[in-house]
Amino acid sequence: MAVFVLVHGSWHEGTAWKEVIRELEARGNKAFAPTAAGYGKGADKNVTHAKCVQSLVEFIVKNSLTDFILVGHSFGGTFISKVAEAVPERIKRLVFQNGFVVRDGYNVMDESPPATAALFERMANESPDKAFLLPFPVWRDAFINDGDLETTKRTYALLSPEPLQPSKDKLDLKKFYSLDIPKSYINATEDIALPPGEWGWHPRMSNRLGLYRLVQMPGSHEVMFTNPSGLAEKIIEAGRD
Amino acid sequence: MAVFVLVHGSWHEGTAWKEVIRELEARGNKAFAPTAAGYGKGADKNVTHAKCVQSLVEFIVKNSLTDFILVGHSFGGTFISKVAEAVPERIKRLVFQNGFVVRDGYNVMDESPPATAALFERMANESPDKAFLLPFPVWRDAFINDGDLETTKRTYALLSPEPLQPSKDKLDLKKFYSLDIPKSYINATEDIALPPGEWGWHPRMSNRLGLYRLVQMPGSHEVMFTNPSGLAEKIIEAGRD
Amino acid sequence: MAVFVLVHGSWHEGTAWKEVIRELEARGNKAFAPTAAGYGKGADKNVTHAKCVQSLVEFIVKNSLTDFILVGHSFGGTFISKVAEAVPERIKRLVFQNGFVVRDGYNVMDESPPATAALFERMANESPDKAFLLPFPVWRDAFINDGDLETTKRTYALLSPEPLQPSKDKLDLKKFYSLDIPKSYINATEDIALPPGEWGWHPRMSNRLGLYRLVQMPGSHEVMFTNPSGLAEKIIEAGRD
Repeated sequence: MAVFVLVHGSWHEGTAWKEVIRELEARGNKAFAPTAAGYGKGADKNVTHAKCVQSLVEFIVKNSLTDFILVGHSFGGTFISKVAEAVPERIKRLVFQNGFVVRDGYNVMDESPPATAALFERMANESPDKAFLLPFPVWRDAFINDGDLETTKRTYALLSPEPLQPSKDKLDLKKFYSLDIPKSYINATEDIALPPGEWGWHPRMSNRLGLYRLVQMPGSHEVMFTNPSGLAEKIIEAGRD
Repeated sequence: MAVFVLVHGSWHEGTAWKEVIRELEARGNKAFAPTAAGYGKGADKNVTHAKCVQSLVEFIVKNSLTDFILVGHSFGGTFISKVAEAVPERIKRLVFQNGFVVRDGYNVMDESPPATAALFERMANESPDKAFLLPFPVWRDAFINDGDLETTKRTYALLSPEPLQPSKDKLDLKKFYSLDIPKSYINATEDIALPPGEWGWHPRMSNRLGLYRLVQMPGSHEVMFTNPSGLAEKIIEAGRD
Repeated sequence: MAVFVLVHGSWHEGTAWKEVIRELEARGNKAFAPTAAGYGKGADKNVTHAKCVQSLVEFIVKNSLTDFILVGHSFGGTFISKVAEAVPERIKRLVFQNGFVVRDGYNVMDESPPATAALFERMANESPDKAFLLPFPVWRDAFINDGDLETTKRTYALLSPEPLQPSKDKLDLKKFYSLDIPKSYINATEDIALPPGEWGWHPRMSNRLGLYRLVQMPGSHEVMFTNPSGLAEKIIEAGRD
């Protein structure tokens, strides 16, 4: 039996992992999915990246979690990198699921295609709380491209506005890059939430991990919704000794 | 029920889609596969790219086709780009199946590896009608690499000489790149008709579409022959709302 | 019925192909897997690349093998390139299975990421016989990333020290690049023994073959251990006419 802590990405919250947790637990594991500060409907969007990370560390400490596999999806990759700096002794392995692996001193905006970064910044600045939602056509074609229309609409309704500031905070990752925690990268082969190639997830992000275990599966950025059973199996494979 | 218009690429004609049409129609859809002017055995090879496109537009108008999904395979990607400029209001979505997405002002020769472009031009110029056939070893190993020898030979016999001129015509695609018709790209993961990487189909061609839905499947450039059922399913997935 | 000669890579010896041979022969084929000079436990590690190749050519000649498909895995790609120069008339097709395709005048060190090459050279130089073993964490996460821990440990015990010199010998491959023997490349899609991208196997190595047949399968660099049945099927597909 393994213990997993699953960290969501932009626009998502912990409940997005619901079906994946069911699949992990049906296979004899235990899984937790906290929601970072500033995320979810109705949350106060006035947060920094550090505050998000702090809320996740507090969840881990409060629940006395140790010897767990820490999984970060998408933007959640930045959260688990900083959580690993805070409580490395508690973590057995880090798993990035199409997750951001940011260079030391950079932010997520730097790591995103300039046109996308500019669009997101403009959308956030048009909102009073500097938070913004992903446009539906982008969700449908570039995020959940393996989902049918019903799934696409049902899951779009689960999303909530993304606070801009965490994407703008430059991240000091010197300690992260010196940690000797084993690492894995799960890549869904049809994930185009970042455009494949120069700005893509894999191998651009994954290779930055140095020695890592690659695990791939068919599917989009949102396999947590379109294939939770397959994703659970890959998380187990990525996390095993 | 959806309506599909399937546009062939170089050396092929409309009948190449025969088995795919059967599979699409067995799933409750309707599909058409016109042959572009200048294509097919015995056709007059003295055509321009514009004339090919015109013949396809005439087919669509004559058959009163509207609200259809327009699919272009390989060189057919250039045809559907220009057909979309001519009759955008009739098209629900564009689907490129390992199709050329040419930059505005360029031609297919510009988009092909220089050695290949030079070989094709030389072969065409050795022929009285400036048309040329793909050499069998290239067909076997780089186009239909997932086919057994029997399939490879049977389908090679279906090919006909490719007129050179449409590959040399520079294409004005300004309007195409301004259209807001949704787009999808189907990539067969073992397609090496264009060499993967710098000169490859995906993500080089696909990313040029801007926002698009990626759909992938195992197989070669010629899945229409080696896996028509699988291709039909992917065309449906690429074309759905 | 086809005849296969299977050539191992670094740290491996001929017996690594045992299960693949069983699968090939269960499908009506015949297969041989010689061990190159200098390879295997207890072998004299004082060899050059030329001596390794000579030992493989002698095996082929002694066993009167002709009209066979020559398969090279990993470093074995360099061996089959030179064997093909020595006895081209005996070979029906060359199959590189995530194999090195070295540029004329270069060596395997030149073709490897500089940090890896430096690590291997340092490890070899610390050993009296200039031979070195792959560290277990690298084997587990970057070579056999699709294997469970039991398989990973069992197969690690089969490895033996790699002589450094063959990786340092510059290879004259002018004749190889002029041979018209058909070629195939088998790529396992999760193989990260070379980091994907700039230093990866495919398409960097494969495209150097010019015209080749691409065959892909899921799995790591060590599918000979984790999926011998699947690999046997892909070797047959890669090798067929």
